[in-house]
Amino acid sequence: MPELRFDPIRRRWSIIATERKFRPHEFAQPQPETSSPEGCPFEYGQEAATPPEILAYGRQNHQPNTPGWQVRVVPNKFPALRIEGELTREGVGIFDRVNGIGAHEVIIETPNHHAEVADRSPEELQLMFKAWRERLTDLRRDIRIRYVLLFKNKGRDAGASLPHPHSQLIATPIIPTVVVEELNVARNHWAHKERCIFCDLIHQEKAFGDRVALETEHFILLEPFAASFPFETWILPKQHSHDFALASDALLLELGKVLRDFLRRIRQLLADPPYNLILHTAPSPHPRPGQPQYWTTIEYDYHWHIEFVPRITRIAGFEWGSGYAINPTPPEEAARFLREATSDGEQP
Amino acid sequence: MPELRFDPIRRRWSIIATERKFRPHEFAQPQPETSSPEGCPFEYGQEAATPPEILAYGRQNHQPNTPGWQVRVVPNKFPALRIEGELTREGVGIFDRVNGIGAHEVIIETPNHHAEVADRSPEELQLMFKAWRERLTDLRRDIRIRYVLLFKNKGRDAGASLPHPHSQLIATPIIPTVVVEELNVARNHWAHKERCIFCDLIHQEKAFGDRVALETEHFILLEPFAASFPFETWILPKQHSHDFALASDALLLELGKVLRDFLRRIRQLLADPPYNLILHTAPSPHPRPGQPQYWTTIEYDYHWHIEFVPRITRIAGFEWGSGYAINPTPPEEAARFLREATSDGEQP
Repeated sequence: MPELRFDPIRRRWSIIATERKFRPHEFAQPQPETSSPEGCPFEYGQEAATPPEILAYGRQNHQPNTPGWQVRVVPNKFPALRIEGELTREGVGIFDRVNGIGAHEVIIETPNHHAEVADRSPEELQLMFKAWRERLTDLRRDIRIRYVLLFKNKGRDAGASLPHPHSQLIATPIIPTVVVEELNVARNHWAHKERCIFCDLIHQEKAFGDRVALETEHFILLEPFAASFPFETWILPKQHSHDFALASDALLLELGKVLRDFLRRIRQLLADPPYNLILHTAPSPHPRPGQPQYWTTIEYDYHWHIEFVPRITRIAGFEWGSGYAINPTPPEEAARFLREATSDGEQP
Repeated sequence: MPELRFDPIRRRWSIIATERKFRPHEFAQPQPETSSPEGCPFEYGQEAATPPEILAYGRQNHQPNTPGWQVRVVPNKFPALRIEGELTREGVGIFDRVNGIGAHEVIIETPNHHAEVADRSPEELQLMFKAWRERLTDLRRDIRIRYVLLFKNKGRDAGASLPHPHSQLIATPIIPTVVVEELNVARNHWAHKERCIFCDLIHQEKAFGDRVALETEHFILLEPFAASFPFETWILPKQHSHDFALASDALLLELGKVLRDFLRRIRQLLADPPYNLILHTAPSPHPRPGQPQYWTTIEYDYHWHIEFVPRITRIAGFEWGSGYAINPTPPEEAARFLREATSDGEQP
């Protein structure tokens, strides 16, 4: 059973794979990145190479774990956390640990090995987001789970171990540190001003204008003022909403359209960079024992969004040791380049 | 002039190179890592290829910027922060910014292009640490500087752009987030218990024993309970001391010995992995305006240490979006492997 461990000095959690017998040579020879569909466990006909599916869309014959699907969700074969067991929290001297209850799933976004997000239709991307929404809603029913983090690693330098287009989710028994920080900031802002800090951000950035990368009817794409990476971008729904699970089918279609447009511009500017996409949305609605009022204003104070993080600069010693990023590209420049790029791969 | 920018939602600082004109194609073609000393600006005879030196040890002829040195410190040619100018802090709507006053220096550790830390003598490593100590002491005299972070990036995946052995320092007008967190934890622990939390950690881990990787007369090397990376290691002086600048020559020699021994074991186990070394020590002694009492207990509550971070796993979407690490190697296993390895490259 893996463990979540807390370090009281750095105030950081780690998920430690305690049961694994370490073999040093595994780290010494990194696997080469292969782009061939041969041997890929996410192809049609390879359904037995993954654990049995949790969800599939688009299959006509209703026979699970067979070809014909358009999106398929399976448990991760090497899960960081496991769904079986009872949650236990305990102290170990000055440390804390929680056993590794949770979930780790893979969303196979398309049967097509080479269909990057920028290559797919808005309808195909809508289907991927529908799978995100459905898994989020389903896992929230589990009282042990406090948060479901949906994310995508594209390319080796962004942490992808398989090239076939896929996203993942990790559901944790503790709300992750980065999310807690955002939730606290949003709640405090509401407590003082009765306004959503993200709505304030959108309002301000529309007025400034120079960090707006793209805008559609219902979405705005901003380059954050203190971006950690060149071309880091936040995708926000313009209308206030705390929860991605409440997004309508129409909104998810528009999200597919704008993400496709954006990633085509990125491909044009940065030549298909490795990247991460991360969804930040409201936590599971289960109150903590003794804190039934903890998230009472969340509907008003929080605002879901997707972070796009291109991995074209490194997190080196300074960044790790300080918590500061060094970003060589002003977000105002990145926004201008994105506005001027076109989504069909041609300069305007 | 670069800028430090603060994001009120994520509560993160970034250093933004605002003056730089971005050219997207720069990111598209990463430079290959070359191991040849040809064209290396850190070789004997290439002294004019760096900005004029700040410090050099070991040269007999006392002629600056000529060969013959053993350790040489120069300003970074592409600095993240600059030493010239007056510090200004201002708000920009809901954001904050501070102009990029600070320092960014390179410590060329040896004239020998191929002499990794594990290959050098303890005396050579002592000289490197003496240069760290001298630059730290000197930069602290600048009232604008609140912190000096000393670090080393080894290998491309750890962020090194040049292979010639070197470390760096970045001096900032704000104490970095990760350090502030540690300082606060240490101060609060002292306030409650009148004990140093690091001394408590050493005491506890010596009793548990299973996370102790190495121990010498004055140093202990621990695998942190919630290690973020496989084989992450903290090097701590066993005797309480808040400030690396106060370390004696004898202690720096022993540090050189134990670091060399440790890195030889790491090389044996992990086949010369990319890594970061990061020094965490007390901040500059200048009180903040209005907070003259801020660091009054620091002499008692803080404890300097060096973090060793091997970069053999990736910071992917989950890690970035959650703040959690996923570590596939239990620190207890890593400590056992390190204890059983030998420093001459042979299995015992």
